[in-house]
Amino acid sequence: MEFIEVMREKTAVDFEGFLLAQEDAFLCVEGAVHSVRDMGEIAFVILRRREGLIQTVLEKEGTDVELSGIREGDFVRVKGTVKPEERAPHGRELKIREVTHLSHANGPLPLAIDKWKLGTSLEAKLDRRSLSLRNLRERAKFRIQEGLVRGFRDFLYGQGFTEIHTPKIGAKSAEGGANLFKLAYFHKPAVLQQSPQLYKQMMVGVFDRVFETGPVFRAEKHNTRRHLNEYTSLDFEMGYIEGFLDICEMETEFLRYAFELLRREYDRELRLLKIELPDVSRIPYVRFDEAKRLISEKYERRIRNPFDLEPEEEELIGRYFQEEYGTDFVFVTHYPSKKRPFYAMDDPEDERFTLSFDLLYKGLEITTGGQRIHDWEALTKKLEKRGMTADGLEQYLDTFRYGMPPHGGLGIGLERLTMQLLGEDNVREACLFPRDMTRLEP
Amino acid sequence: MEFIEVMREKTAVDFEGFLLAQEDAFLCVEGAVHSVRDMGEIAFVILRRREGLIQTVLEKEGTDVELSGIREGDFVRVKGTVKPEERAPHGRELKIREVTHLSHANGPLPLAIDKWKLGTSLEAKLDRRSLSLRNLRERAKFRIQEGLVRGFRDFLYGQGFTEIHTPKIGAKSAEGGANLFKLAYFHKPAVLQQSPQLYKQMMVGVFDRVFETGPVFRAEKHNTRRHLNEYTSLDFEMGYIEGFLDICEMETEFLRYAFELLRREYDRELRLLKIELPDVSRIPYVRFDEAKRLISEKYERRIRNPFDLEPEEEELIGRYFQEEYGTDFVFVTHYPSKKRPFYAMDDPEDERFTLSFDLLYKGLEITTGGQRIHDWEALTKKLEKRGMTADGLEQYLDTFRYGMPPHGGLGIGLERLTMQLLGEDNVREACLFPRDMTRLEP
Repeated sequence: MEFIEVMREKTAVDFEGFLLAQEDAFLCVEGAVHSVRDMGEIAFVILRRREGLIQTVLEKEGTDVELSGIREGDFVRVKGTVKPEERAPHGRELKIREVTHLSHANGPLPLAIDKWKLGTSLEAKLDRRSLSLRNLRERAKFRIQEGLVRGFRDFLYGQGFTEIHTPKIGAKSAEGGANLFKLAYFHKPAVLQQSPQLYKQMMVGVFDRVFETGPVFRAEKHNTRRHLNEYTSLDFEMGYIEGFLDICEMETEFLRYAFELLRREYDRELRLLKIELPDVSRIPYVRFDEAKRLISEKYERRIRNPFDLEPEEEELIGRYFQEEYGTDFVFVTHYPSKKRPFYAMDDPEDERFTLSFDLLYKGLEITTGGQRIHDWEALTKKLEKRGMTADGLEQYLDTFRYGMPPHGGLGIGLERLTMQLLGEDNVREACLFPRDMTRLEP
Repeated sequence: MEFIEVMREKTAVDFEGFLLAQEDAFLCVEGAVHSVRDMGEIAFVILRRREGLIQTVLEKEGTDVELSGIREGDFVRVKGTVKPEERAPHGRELKIREVTHLSHANGPLPLAIDKWKLGTSLEAKLDRRSLSLRNLRERAKFRIQEGLVRGFRDFLYGQGFTEIHTPKIGAKSAEGGANLFKLAYFHKPAVLQQSPQLYKQMMVGVFDRVFETGPVFRAEKHNTRRHLNEYTSLDFEMGYIEGFLDICEMETEFLRYAFELLRREYDRELRLLKIELPDVSRIPYVRFDEAKRLISEKYERRIRNPFDLEPEEEELIGRYFQEEYGTDFVFVTHYPSKKRPFYAMDDPEDERFTLSFDLLYKGLEITTGGQRIHDWEALTKKLEKRGMTADGLEQYLDTFRYGMPPHGGLGIGLERLTMQLLGEDNVREACLFPRDMTRLEP
């Protein structure tokens, strides 16, 4: 019988193997042909690997290797000797002795992926997603995104949170109301979840602190630069809180942790994209009504609706706190009850407002969170007051009937957080395969 | 202006604070009342936190605290002094001075969650999921599950994989064919993805190595102990492989890493559930046809269909390798082409079989993987041969048209892996909120 035991050594060295090899070592490397530059007597064949570029050089005299057989987009295995070369990436290049093709590009690439900036419309990039992302800067964005979600999980593991996986198909939605994608589930009506809200609350009574990173679905008919109909939500929910500021603190600590992780492990991508990590040593918080007053005064803008925040107002709040306090982030607290779902806890001092918050990052909402009602009677009364029924919420309500700790939590839109950090204008730039009202492919 | 700066100290200490406090220290702890045992002059009130149990003790003489006011299911804040007590969990207890309620249980708990084993049917547990999981052993299962998915990600980060998030709503499915949940996406027909297969392959040309942990949806009409209609899939895909055994090696290394993580960080849960971690120092691999021959001979079972593997045969293969080699795991390789999707690479030495594999764990398939076709022409020919059209696969195929490295990958069913490790009979035991043909709630 044969067994899988250790990882066998491979023919080709990895990126690090190339970097650490001694001068004149004979090596085999693999990669995609990122670009070919024919200089006459010699030619540079630049290989692309996940870690970066490797320069290989073909001296046409005295070799069987035909440059014409090597085209951008090909995937190749190159054997040769390592030589120092100051002008090459990482100060070294591979002098080509032998080239074997792993696969061929059938025709010239439709996008100039080897360019520093792709210089292509967003639509064109999305239409050829698997090619446009081969551009170094395009793909680097998603390495940064990885760092954010990885930081979220790592930080919360360290804070005693348990990771959960909740169903995306359900009989009833978390928030109720419209904006739901509907489907038939073995002839029963079902919906796609807009949020893991009710599930994560139900799990607070079990694990005290839980989180989930997963897709959420919103059938919103907004085709704006800020909306996606499917996005990745970073959710957590925690019990035994003393107030909603505990949630804000946890989020602030997460941001510090994630940015530190990026600084430490994603430095290559930060430099490639010229990203300056924001200061999150302190984040101001301001009441919803106070925020409206501040921008109304400073920017001479009339308050049209005291219980609503328009996107332009969010932007102005962001601008205000950047100008006055030099910060990209601000927690806006005490959102009006009318604007929050039934489970939000009203402020006992003024029930028109809730013990909840949004976090704005450069004037864009990237998080909604707050304290939730944990008392069964208060929860059933709130449902009644809203004219909602317990129908489909039986198990959720039962959770509270048998006791729950004071708790709260939040949801962060991963693509929005990424978009703002990258300084992108459109959230689709921060999503591998965006779904919007008109885009269902690839 | 006020700012979020550091995490403020809380009134109650955490679990560690209780464990590390000096004798006679006056502390505040919070928790759920897990059980109340009235011994006459004294009573034990056991509190449940995510880390375990805390024993608090009420001496009825000389206190205002009324035992009758403390009921199982209540969430409380208890103040008192720390005393050593050999028979208590962790060798200490809190002598109660003051009890404040965070919330009340409205009536006796419908399940005896403080019992060592719940002794309730699976259906009853699922019908009251947020309560049944408050049982220590029930919830420990999902801590183990966390360790597995966490191990998967951590291991792959270390191996140079990039985490991706691919859309669950699509115009076309990965595998084609039946078993798809259909929905209307702004009046366009859409499906829920059965697998991130096509997306992760498309991303191999970008990041070389990618992984995703997320939900997949299968409208299979199987209501068995092994099937879920929505489950969490641990997927990876890697480029520049020399053969499909590279994938088996990577999975074997993942299992070692994950079990080591469990040993190190989930020891409490392993002990609670009496789980013996399996030996994965070596995993045998055997061809599909050879495996069928071996069990046919040993267990005197006629081979009915040489191109199919029945669940009973999977079980027998598991049994065979346990008996002959003392291993719980076995890779079954070279599955018949007819049983594999179009993208599977056929074995050039015998095209009736593929360069693919399943991993069986105690006789149950927990993984399907293999090498994929990376050559554009070979891929289009395979589609033709299957009578499939390129319709809806344009971007996927374009990925190959412009070059791809040899690659392969796999998908692991998280719930099945958990189920086998836990020694459970039904996959629903390893899913927080299972979805099957009849269960859409909670």
